[in-house]
Amino acid sequence: MNAEIITIGDEILIGQIVDTNSQWIGQQLNKIGVSVYQITSIQDDKEHILNALKEAQERVGIVIITGGLGPTKDDITKKTMAEFFNDGKVIEYPEVVVHIQKMFKKYNIPYKKVQQYQAQLPSKATLLMNNLGTAPGMWFYENNTVFVSLPGVPYEMKGLITHQVLPRIQKKFKLPFIIHKTIMTYGQGESTIAERIEDFENNLPPDIKLAYLPSFGRVRLRLSAKGENKEELETALNAKVNEVYQLIPEIITGLDDDSSLEKKVGELLKKSNQTIATAESLTGGKIAATLVSVAGSSAYYKGSFVTYSAETKIKLLDVSAETIKKHTVVSGEVALEMARGVKEKLQTNYAIAVTGNAGPTADHNDKSVGLVYIAFVSDDKEIVQEFNFGQPREKVINRTVSKALEILQKEIH
Amino acid sequence: MNAEIITIGDEILIGQIVDTNSQWIGQQLNKIGVSVYQITSIQDDKEHILNALKEAQERVGIVIITGGLGPTKDDITKKTMAEFFNDGKVIEYPEVVVHIQKMFKKYNIPYKKVQQYQAQLPSKATLLMNNLGTAPGMWFYENNTVFVSLPGVPYEMKGLITHQVLPRIQKKFKLPFIIHKTIMTYGQGESTIAERIEDFENNLPPDIKLAYLPSFGRVRLRLSAKGENKEELETALNAKVNEVYQLIPEIITGLDDDSSLEKKVGELLKKSNQTIATAESLTGGKIAATLVSVAGSSAYYKGSFVTYSAETKIKLLDVSAETIKKHTVVSGEVALEMARGVKEKLQTNYAIAVTGNAGPTADHNDKSVGLVYIAFVSDDKEIVQEFNFGQPREKVINRTVSKALEILQKEIH
Repeated sequence: MNAEIITIGDEILIGQIVDTNSQWIGQQLNKIGVSVYQITSIQDDKEHILNALKEAQERVGIVIITGGLGPTKDDITKKTMAEFFNDGKVIEYPEVVVHIQKMFKKYNIPYKKVQQYQAQLPSKATLLMNNLGTAPGMWFYENNTVFVSLPGVPYEMKGLITHQVLPRIQKKFKLPFIIHKTIMTYGQGESTIAERIEDFENNLPPDIKLAYLPSFGRVRLRLSAKGENKEELETALNAKVNEVYQLIPEIITGLDDDSSLEKKVGELLKKSNQTIATAESLTGGKIAATLVSVAGSSAYYKGSFVTYSAETKIKLLDVSAETIKKHTVVSGEVALEMARGVKEKLQTNYAIAVTGNAGPTADHNDKSVGLVYIAFVSDDKEIVQEFNFGQPREKVINRTVSKALEILQKEIH
Repeated sequence: MNAEIITIGDEILIGQIVDTNSQWIGQQLNKIGVSVYQITSIQDDKEHILNALKEAQERVGIVIITGGLGPTKDDITKKTMAEFFNDGKVIEYPEVVVHIQKMFKKYNIPYKKVQQYQAQLPSKATLLMNNLGTAPGMWFYENNTVFVSLPGVPYEMKGLITHQVLPRIQKKFKLPFIIHKTIMTYGQGESTIAERIEDFENNLPPDIKLAYLPSFGRVRLRLSAKGENKEELETALNAKVNEVYQLIPEIITGLDDDSSLEKKVGELLKKSNQTIATAESLTGGKIAATLVSVAGSSAYYKGSFVTYSAETKIKLLDVSAETIKKHTVVSGEVALEMARGVKEKLQTNYAIAVTGNAGPTADHNDKSVGLVYIAFVSDDKEIVQEFNFGQPREKVINRTVSKALEILQKEIH
């Protein structure tokens, strides 16, 4: 079963916001065996919406629409869907009226009659109760196609997808299994890897797809399969993964399997009941934020210092002024003292620290842009590594974060 | 002139990555007067690509395609574009070969013959030199439509858009001006605001559009206009902005004008040559990361403490154990001592600190989920505020960040 996601709202088209909703919906649909065939972002415009609905209906069996369900004039999704289905009748849902009144009371906002409009749905719609907001979701089944309309507010949309939409889709369709296995590599470019696994790739069965995903110095190899029998799929994919392992053993860091480096680092720390802290310069807290993004990270993540200036490195992390003078702020020696300092201050088992020059301009101590030092310290080991991540700034920062996590994954046990 | 952005790659559809490229391209096109009519994300599949190109050509005058230009088998964009334009001839560009060889030499990777393919373009393509990667961009003008194909790697794409694509579009088309003014409000919901400015909205001229963008407790009102005369547009929009200011004066925090709260906070600090530091609990460094995301922030941003546990709050920020015992970790008293502590440690003019319970489960000290305290400290002022941001976790964290920045914008001068 194929799906299309349609997001409605000029804010995406003019670049005012990033469309993170579609990514999340794509992941959820994939997990229950629905492939996303296309994602389409369109304007708050009646003709445009009607046209997009018509095109989507020709392409897929499930259409998920987000956005345009608010109570204001620029929110035209509900009206337009009614027109699309030739549905002139409206039904008011008393339970939605009660729910909206309750919400307004809770947040101490006077309830206004205009809110009642939110409780009225086209007669062909099935109500999808939205416990986190005032705009209900709608489910239509017309012309052999499921149409689901949801509010664009991320947490409201997520609640509706999880509790209402996915269970209904699973009940309505007999769905296959979709499995992805992602092999993480480092140190070689995609063309080199492609050359090394050329025979393997040429001999893949048609129902297994291989994709190369290069990103900041690492290439992920994603193998995907779709089928009725989950165990057979797993077996087939695992066999293929093993073949790749045998062809390029020395550049594989592991399997991704839906789980990120930060999650793996977290698992390693939890399992061994150990803790970690971070000290960052050029990455400005991005390593910390990445580690903390994992739910439950408070069990092992003790804290972070973002020390931009030489002065704060000395004051907060006990880096010696002597070391900075002798080696400059962008040096392995300073990275190491930062790591030692934060480990000592926060009394953790591990610490990682980074210092470097992300650009765009070289700083006064004249080290070249892109130069980065990462130091890792544990109870019985100290490592310092030098990298040159080139430019631009964004790439240097992201590669530093990725490399730091890679080192943690390798060294923590 | 309308444009469509087409992103090619299953990684977006299965939710493996977020499509941030399209947002950025949308912003850049808007700035030179091109409206993005639609964004379409499609699979690495020949028929799908051909179909999307055909549909886009019927809708818009400029089609920007990203992705699928790598050297591996799953990268089929170049071949497919050649087929779309019935272009069987290929031209090899010696300057691209030289550039690729140089890149490989710089990064110390053996140059392979397979790379040569990257230097070969369909004969109808105009070469767009990519100085940051091996895949050149391509510019086609066929059937009165501009087609631009770019690599999907963000910094390569950005370089090509900035230096090659935008100047060419501006040269080729006489473009109008597109202007957006966004009015930031707080404290009232979109339906209440809509009611208050109903007459204003009903009397807007057809060439000025109004949109409501609710997000984590704040509603942004975006007024957009498009026209040939920039000054006339500015005057007309400014008049409309003034009308809104007169209708809802007490809930407006300012104009957005493309600049975010964190940028404004940065400008305020730079102008007065003052500094700031942050101490965060539930937000895990997100306030720091937001402040640091502004280029040049090292001039005023001194550093951050992420203190998850009561223990680190005591150890790093000199919060008193007595205070925590008496008031619990989630209290105004603790927020205030955190702010004082970080201000003292980093010797800044301002400090902001947050503590709270983001959920999903209430913690052992039994304060309800969603409860957040924000403390602001300057040389001559201390403020503590209590909020309940409800749930879920994501909303609590984001509203805390947004509220903290709002307080900074209000209090710094």
